[in-house]
Amino acid sequence: PNTTVSQYPSFRYKPVSPGATPFGRGGRRYMTMNNVGYVSVVKNNEQNSVTVSFFDIGRFREYHFEDVFGYDLCSLNEEGTLLGQSKTGMLHYRSHNMIHSNWTKMIPLTHGERITSIAATTFRIFVGSSHGYMRIFNRHGLPLAVEKVSPVVALAAQDYKVFAVHYSPYHGISYSLFELSPTASKYYQRECPLPMTLPQLNLTSEGDVDKQFIKFSPLGLKSLFFSAYGDPCLFGSDNVLLLLSKWRSPSESRWLPVLDANMELWKMSGGKNNTQIHVWPLGLNYDTLNCILVKGKNIWPEFPLPLPSEMEMRIPILVKSRIVEEEEKRKSKSEDTIGEGTSDGAGGGQQNEEIAIPPTMAAEEELLRSKVLSDLLKDSIENDGEVFGNENEILSSLNWSYDKALLRLFAGACAEQNMEMATSLVKEIKQDKALIAATKIAERAELPVLVKKINETREARFEEQINN
Amino acid sequence: PNTTVSQYPSFRYKPVSPGATPFGRGGRRYMTMNNVGYVSVVKNNEQNSVTVSFFDIGRFREYHFEDVFGYDLCSLNEEGTLLGQSKTGMLHYRSHNMIHSNWTKMIPLTHGERITSIAATTFRIFVGSSHGYMRIFNRHGLPLAVEKVSPVVALAAQDYKVFAVHYSPYHGISYSLFELSPTASKYYQRECPLPMTLPQLNLTSEGDVDKQFIKFSPLGLKSLFFSAYGDPCLFGSDNVLLLLSKWRSPSESRWLPVLDANMELWKMSGGKNNTQIHVWPLGLNYDTLNCILVKGKNIWPEFPLPLPSEMEMRIPILVKSRIVEEEEKRKSKSEDTIGEGTSDGAGGGQQNEEIAIPPTMAAEEELLRSKVLSDLLKDSIENDGEVFGNENEILSSLNWSYDKALLRLFAGACAEQNMEMATSLVKEIKQDKALIAATKIAERAELPVLVKKINETREARFEEQINN
Amino acid sequence: PNTTVSQYPSFRYKPVSPGATPFGRGGRRYMTMNNVGYVSVVKNNEQNSVTVSFFDIGRFREYHFEDVFGYDLCSLNEEGTLLGQSKTGMLHYRSHNMIHSNWTKMIPLTHGERITSIAATTFRIFVGSSHGYMRIFNRHGLPLAVEKVSPVVALAAQDYKVFAVHYSPYHGISYSLFELSPTASKYYQRECPLPMTLPQLNLTSEGDVDKQFIKFSPLGLKSLFFSAYGDPCLFGSDNVLLLLSKWRSPSESRWLPVLDANMELWKMSGGKNNTQIHVWPLGLNYDTLNCILVKGKNIWPEFPLPLPSEMEMRIPILVKSRIVEEEEKRKSKSEDTIGEGTSDGAGGGQQNEEIAIPPTMAAEEELLRSKVLSDLLKDSIENDGEVFGNENEILSSLNWSYDKALLRLFAGACAEQNMEMATSLVKEIKQDKALIAATKIAERAELPVLVKKINETREARFEEQINN
Repeated sequence: PNTTVSQYPSFRYKPVSPGATPFGRGGRRYMTMNNVGYVSVVKNNEQNSVTVSFFDIGRFREYHFEDVFGYDLCSLNEEGTLLGQSKTGMLHYRSHNMIHSNWTKMIPLTHGERITSIAATTFRIFVGSSHGYMRIFNRHGLPLAVEKVSPVVALAAQDYKVFAVHYSPYHGISYSLFELSPTASKYYQRECPLPMTLPQLNLTSEGDVDKQFIKFSPLGLKSLFFSAYGDPCLFGSDNVLLLLSKWRSPSESRWLPVLDANMELWKMSGGKNNTQIHVWPLGLNYDTLNCILVKGKNIWPEFPLPLPSEMEMRIPILVKSRIVEEEEKRKSKSEDTIGEGTSDGAGGGQQNEEIAIPPTMAAEEELLRSKVLSDLLKDSIENDGEVFGNENEILSSLNWSYDKALLRLFAGACAEQNMEMATSLVKEIKQDKALIAATKIAERAELPVLVKKINETREARFEEQINN
Repeated sequence: PNTTVSQYPSFRYKPVSPGATPFGRGGRRYMTMNNVGYVSVVKNNEQNSVTVSFFDIGRFREYHFEDVFGYDLCSLNEEGTLLGQSKTGMLHYRSHNMIHSNWTKMIPLTHGERITSIAATTFRIFVGSSHGYMRIFNRHGLPLAVEKVSPVVALAAQDYKVFAVHYSPYHGISYSLFELSPTASKYYQRECPLPMTLPQLNLTSEGDVDKQFIKFSPLGLKSLFFSAYGDPCLFGSDNVLLLLSKWRSPSESRWLPVLDANMELWKMSGGKNNTQIHVWPLGLNYDTLNCILVKGKNIWPEFPLPLPSEMEMRIPILVKSRIVEEEEKRKSKSEDTIGEGTSDGAGGGQQNEEIAIPPTMAAEEELLRSKVLSDLLKDSIENDGEVFGNENEILSSLNWSYDKALLRLFAGACAEQNMEMATSLVKEIKQDKALIAATKIAERAELPVLVKKINETREARFEEQINN
Repeated sequence: PNTTVSQYPSFRYKPVSPGATPFGRGGRRYMTMNNVGYVSVVKNNEQNSVTVSFFDIGRFREYHFEDVFGYDLCSLNEEGTLLGQSKTGMLHYRSHNMIHSNWTKMIPLTHGERITSIAATTFRIFVGSSHGYMRIFNRHGLPLAVEKVSPVVALAAQDYKVFAVHYSPYHGISYSLFELSPTASKYYQRECPLPMTLPQLNLTSEGDVDKQFIKFSPLGLKSLFFSAYGDPCLFGSDNVLLLLSKWRSPSESRWLPVLDANMELWKMSGGKNNTQIHVWPLGLNYDTLNCILVKGKNIWPEFPLPLPSEMEMRIPILVKSRIVEEEEKRKSKSEDTIGEGTSDGAGGGQQNEEIAIPPTMAAEEELLRSKVLSDLLKDSIENDGEVFGNENEILSSLNWSYDKALLRLFAGACAEQNMEMATSLVKEIKQDKALIAATKIAERAELPVLVKKINETREARFEEQINN
């Protein structure tokens, strides 16, 4: 009985599109959703009515059409909509402005094979299947390549690039990043392990809603997309936004957690675990997640779609228990000064006031975030030049944020007379004006040895600059 | 009970040799099989009789010997035969021409460890085990290296190179490609995910025969080998030939499906699923799979071995349902012209006539195939020079096939007045003479705008050539 | 029921530190152990008493402290001790010499997340979690980076480098090797499959002791560390020391099995499987494993700790059955010469005499070992220069060992008149003086053809040298 590998837990491959939701009230669902807009579908007896809607209604106009083939996959970009049927292999492309001709094509599927995901850009169309067939077409449906990879579970594309997520019990969970342009056909990353946190059904205390979503999207993937600067992003069932930095270099690329939406909601709710508010991701513009704030028990948006919200990047280093401790200290202090505080006052009226982050923690977070953002920008400028024109300006502002965060930590270290920590912080400071500021802080803290060390550092850097 | 990882489904490591078959009628089986020949064994009471046979009987002479050790692994090359015993670790090398001395050697195995595969070339001997020990010897059995890798399940070798397939529940299914030559010791690919389609026993409707083979070869691997141009190839239980193109470059290598034998059999059978004919792979010569066509319910060949057949590469993009539709249209048309067609006529007499492929589909397939073959050849010429002397000639013929396929698609697009598609096809055309042909097609279709675009393209290329 | 991936066998992430042992008699255990020393803990009602001890008592002084937080992770280096609590995320750093200030810090953990491992060097602190969060700090606890990787199960660090082991059912077992220095942030190896032999509980005949250890350390990892020359090493449940050679180059790195402790114990016990002696690893100095020889049924050391022992590298190519055969031949011969041997004599008195290795096997082992050691040294010298000053001297001695081993094999091949083998050995010889020795051996064996071949080889090399 143990001669074969067939006892593996089976995994059902499902059609997965970025931002797609399960069918809900009134037989409606979103087929896909991103920074550009959203495609929704209503079941109507024999056929489906599809609506393509846009966030920028000045630039695009909403449109409808009927679908008799039961398309269950969708990719939306600024130029068109690609639909796919996972079981039959049917593909259908529609251009938004109707100038270009629409087309329909059939993908061959072998026994048991499903199309799991499709992605369209203005240059390329990518189609991935549960058996690992990856098919690439030009925008008009001309086949350019057929390749076998590990089973594909999700795709996102930008220009000539595709970001693919793979999974099978035999191949693990991995991702690829490759490009098929007129001049190059190259993998930046090939089936590297993807450090996605997977749904933990056994541990669940969150009940049926999550289970329902996992049934719909087995890996719990809410969305995947390229950021405005071209970096691959992933938003999974743990509500953490992961971003792949320096993806062009296999030895330098890293998946960075740049936002824990649960933590942000907790902070917004004044330190409470509000289970009635959820974040549904759309896209990432520089340091801001564009998203839908969903209210209610469902984790995905229903109809009509609320207006998009913004949530800023925050590197997840905050420790809730420490924040609560500090908050309680602060409150008991302020209650002391005000006079008698009522438990109602703290537990009732103020309950949705944003919680305060202890200054050291906040400075450490800002330090890391400035570093991450400046690394991303530098990589983007080096490879693609200035995309929006203000990148170098942002970079110098990030350098200043970085040094300011260090100065705040430095002031703290001085207050605690922690010479070793203070010295190690001085080494990290980038700009001379920040070193001058550090000197003043050390003077005020009456630490002449430290002042001397900073001055030595300044001189050493000055000489180094002259010699180079 | 859930503290350990021991609940993993167990996998029984089996001795796997390229092209080997299970024991069949009369206690006989093939121990290995490839382009050079085949090694067969008959159980004879206490010992086994081994026969080494060759396809080129002008060059090689068949020979026999007795085996008292129960060898269950075999590798055959143009110079000798290597045998191995998976449980005891015994190795035995025999030279075909008997000039070189034969030798026997013992491989150490730890508790529960098995040799799973061996591979011999005229320069190197590779031995892989279920615990991941990879041992490399020179042809005379001198140990050159011992390395630990993920558990090995199959090996094929050429000159100083080895292509290894790895599997374990903890490490997934992967492959390596490395070389240990007198001057270099390098990995081209190291334990990269192998996009092999694995046996789907749960889904099986094909019954006991396949199960029997999976019991014999747990991953369903029928054969693995290097092509005549030195590219690694794999033929698994899905009867698709996979070929690794550009394997020297980690960022450009891709597994290409270059032949779906099931589809070819279906076409040969006039669009029927004939379950009584199977393809057993031997090797790949340029664009042609050398194989045994097996008739009957077994998927592997019995005794005596039928003569080898040839099957040409075909990129799997054909859609059966579309082909059948077109075929039915065509038939009903021809029946209309002939008069009354009988259902006997269609279902009986013509049943084994090869089915016709719709012209657009055929052109798309040829387009992709010419591209694949020319990429393979270019990579081979760049790295190894011309191996057979006619490579550059073949290349220019492939360029012409590529352009011809584009012209056929172009003619189709013109007929449908699909200007966008037609224009995108023009961009792909490589040769000026093909562009001239395109002009004529566009003129005939009365599309002067298109003619103008082609002429512009020609001029732009002409100028570019001059400037370079 | 089969729509999700939740049926995977669960794996309980445990706190793992290099050389750590489970709690034993008297509520004591070692929290970590390496070449520098060991940290032990005793449970005392409400709190734990921790002792940091050193092997070099001239250089370091043992110290104690009380722990009220229940730290269960530990990393010890020459400058300090880092402690961690897997469930709360508490970290505590203590400097050995007390000049530097100690510090305490909290790591944020999400629902169900555990810190699985920590590693401290004099420059960096690395913290890995079961959800794959890798956090890097400077020595004073300043956060430098947060990254998401596959779940981490063990860590070891040296200077700015970290060697991480990852595992999850979805990601397989893999390792990373990366560096975060002031000037570079780069991966040498990123989540590559780790060819570790995993505990085989199903096959176990060794009973409860091993099960107990696997419960404590689910992957059976006894220790991981960097060698004195900076190469990552791993010692798992199979008691084989694995070393990663040429780790700076993704295409050349290889995991080499350099010592099978079970085999060495078997040899030391005169060819018996002594289940009452075990090897507990501390570190690797050049070609010698520093370890604790543990006596009794437990595989890990108890209190007090025995003095460290040394075990030399041996490439695992010895075949026990062959050694026993030869030994028996040898014994029966010597018994014949002595007169009547008593079975007591062989089975009793001499039982712990080290078993003799047949000369060919010993020469093959020495050949491989000299090659491995010289490759390691060359890589180290090329990249880091001479670390201890005597590296080039060792290298030339290794070259000589290599040639001597070849000469011994050559003499054997001559004795057997195996011309082909003898010729292939001549090609491997590196030094001219060894070729001269080979000439003499061939002359003595009366093989003039071989003598001529050697002379030709010498002349060819001589001319090549002149021309270069």
